[in-house]
Amino acid sequence: MTRIDDLPIRDELRGKSPYGAPQLDVPVRLNTNENPYPLPEALVERITERVAHAARGLNRYPDRDALELRTALAEYLTRTTGHRTETAGVWAANGSNEILQQLLQAFGGPGRLALGFEPSYSMHALIARGTGTDWLAGPRGADFTIDVDAARALIAEQAPDVVFVCSPNNPTGTAVAAETVLALHDAAQRAALDRGRRGALVVIDEAYGEFSHRPSLLPLIDGRPNLVLSRTMSKAFGAAGLRLGYLAADPAVVDAVQLVRLPYHLSSVTQATALAALEHTDTLLGYVEQLKSERDRIVAELRAIGCEVTDSDANFVQFGRFDPDAPDSTLPLTANAVWQALLEHGVLVRDNGVPGRLRVTAGTPAENDAFLDAVRAVMKENKR
Amino acid sequence: MTRIDDLPIRDELRGKSPYGAPQLDVPVRLNTNENPYPLPEALVERITERVAHAARGLNRYPDRDALELRTALAEYLTRTTGHRTETAGVWAANGSNEILQQLLQAFGGPGRLALGFEPSYSMHALIARGTGTDWLAGPRGADFTIDVDAARALIAEQAPDVVFVCSPNNPTGTAVAAETVLALHDAAQRAALDRGRRGALVVIDEAYGEFSHRPSLLPLIDGRPNLVLSRTMSKAFGAAGLRLGYLAADPAVVDAVQLVRLPYHLSSVTQATALAALEHTDTLLGYVEQLKSERDRIVAELRAIGCEVTDSDANFVQFGRFDPDAPDSTLPLTANAVWQALLEHGVLVRDNGVPGRLRVTAGTPAENDAFLDAVRAVMKENKR
Repeated sequence: MTRIDDLPIRDELRGKSPYGAPQLDVPVRLNTNENPYPLPEALVERITERVAHAARGLNRYPDRDALELRTALAEYLTRTTGHRTETAGVWAANGSNEILQQLLQAFGGPGRLALGFEPSYSMHALIARGTGTDWLAGPRGADFTIDVDAARALIAEQAPDVVFVCSPNNPTGTAVAAETVLALHDAAQRAALDRGRRGALVVIDEAYGEFSHRPSLLPLIDGRPNLVLSRTMSKAFGAAGLRLGYLAADPAVVDAVQLVRLPYHLSSVTQATALAALEHTDTLLGYVEQLKSERDRIVAELRAIGCEVTDSDANFVQFGRFDPDAPDSTLPLTANAVWQALLEHGVLVRDNGVPGRLRVTAGTPAENDAFLDAVRAVMKENKR
Repeated sequence: MTRIDDLPIRDELRGKSPYGAPQLDVPVRLNTNENPYPLPEALVERITERVAHAARGLNRYPDRDALELRTALAEYLTRTTGHRTETAGVWAANGSNEILQQLLQAFGGPGRLALGFEPSYSMHALIARGTGTDWLAGPRGADFTIDVDAARALIAEQAPDVVFVCSPNNPTGTAVAAETVLALHDAAQRAALDRGRRGALVVIDEAYGEFSHRPSLLPLIDGRPNLVLSRTMSKAFGAAGLRLGYLAADPAVVDAVQLVRLPYHLSSVTQATALAALEHTDTLLGYVEQLKSERDRIVAELRAIGCEVTDSDANFVQFGRFDPDAPDSTLPLTANAVWQALLEHGVLVRDNGVPGRLRVTAGTPAENDAFLDAVRAVMKENKR
């Protein structure tokens, strides 16, 4: 049998494993930040209508520029953020992963450096590797916020070509203040200009933006052509299976990604399904409100139990602290042992590798109750 | 207004334009090798059934490994080529472009070299550029076949990491003999091993394989873990809008691309639609037979008119020769002038930049008649 390492693969891939959470069959799955609410039946019907229409023309290539979809996304952004957004300043792809990959192909790549503040969405580093971009992991403070002074100093020293700011941040849930983004943006431009370059790209990953207590950072792109906002329909639209990510930026950025995008990257059925979902925005944003209130309840109840909980602006909550060696930790167990104990109670959460912490997705009220009951049971079973 | 060149994009992208044929509104569009037959209504219905089912679970991520779809593709390959293919040796992505991109991310990339024999599918070179892979354009003979001795010498000298063999070749229509593929494969392994590497990847791009007079090259992958066959549902399945490409190879190659694929790259609706189309293989392959016979008719009629026509194993035909300065050319016009003249007669063909040649896609009998009439008219209008 041939093994990967027998093949002429790139050296940096040898010994690596594919990204992905374990897909386990468990009663309560709160591990991948999916929206727990299935699409309403009226939307399912609308999807089948639109897909049937697309299927009748499936022998033809899709609209390469996805103009109708980008127009609908621009209208959605304008309506929900109040920031007037044009079709020419919106681009769509197969999940925000592909958006980020296209940005790194155009603005990162071999000989260039991307910076993120970890712990954060681990695909940022993986997509950097996949596009040959060097990766620099910047730090966060003990409360998981970005220390602006430390970040500015790092940017001045390293002059990254691309800076990722994930807000709300996955897996911590932490929102980033507009002033912080601006400080990082300005520092990145200055460091790049000082070295004779045309600035640096700053990517705000707002995949969980609709769940935040704060307004979208979208208005910051005005007058800043090197600032890009990335979004997804996976979470707020309850459409993780659709794989529809998008970006908003200066139209020149959209022109730039078209130099590296694979032609006809977005299928007719994907475009049709996304358009149907955008027609049902109000219903879907209603679910978002329910999830925000459940998220706030999880934070409050975990704190009442005695967990250390990171403030969350997302549809998930980071909690801990688990450390068998620390007398002040919530439980005398490792995070991974708590993960396993919750699994034995039928609840799957995520161990993202953040020391002493786990992440739970806000599910339906019943799922969240099951999760909270499981935490209580594990705490009872493992009292100090 | 910000222009692309004001942005900090990669230097090699400055001044470039996006790939893509002009999308013009013309009565007879024979320019992008689309299948002219819309999907049968029974298949459209099956797609809507399957998509409705997928839409009801759209809040969940798709099957990251697309196991059901890969199993159906493996069965299709086994049944139509006679070569027993396992699920573990098949991988699927958003169009064969994404398949090729993943292969180059894993086996090409910075510091590595890919070789293709031009003229060929121009995305090979573009995806190489997009993944930071160096590109070497190898030659073809005057009849557009690959000169095995010249190719072997080039491979021995340059030792490419990846070799593309497009068969049937786009835009020429030329099929490559199995012995040629084996000669190139063996030369590429030898050149790489001589330099202390673990061999070189050879990618057979068989996007138009179902239209060939010859059997598939699939059986060649047996015992050759560095040989990969890439395919698409865009052409034979009449599903260009679906964006479903796939590869067949040693399972180790499938493991390797999983190290670079974006997680959940293939949406639930794409998987559902492709599965529906695979249920209707027999009907769709019936259309392929009609197109093959039309393709042969176009070749014969163009030759009868006096055109120089390249033998075709694809769903398109390369014809010429157009040269205002050559007394023996078919017409005293450039290929681009003939392209324009045909457009004025309501027929859109493709100018792929091959000197003196144009490419026409086999359409419906009526479309092909319109094309042949237009050629006759242009020849009459431009007699020497």
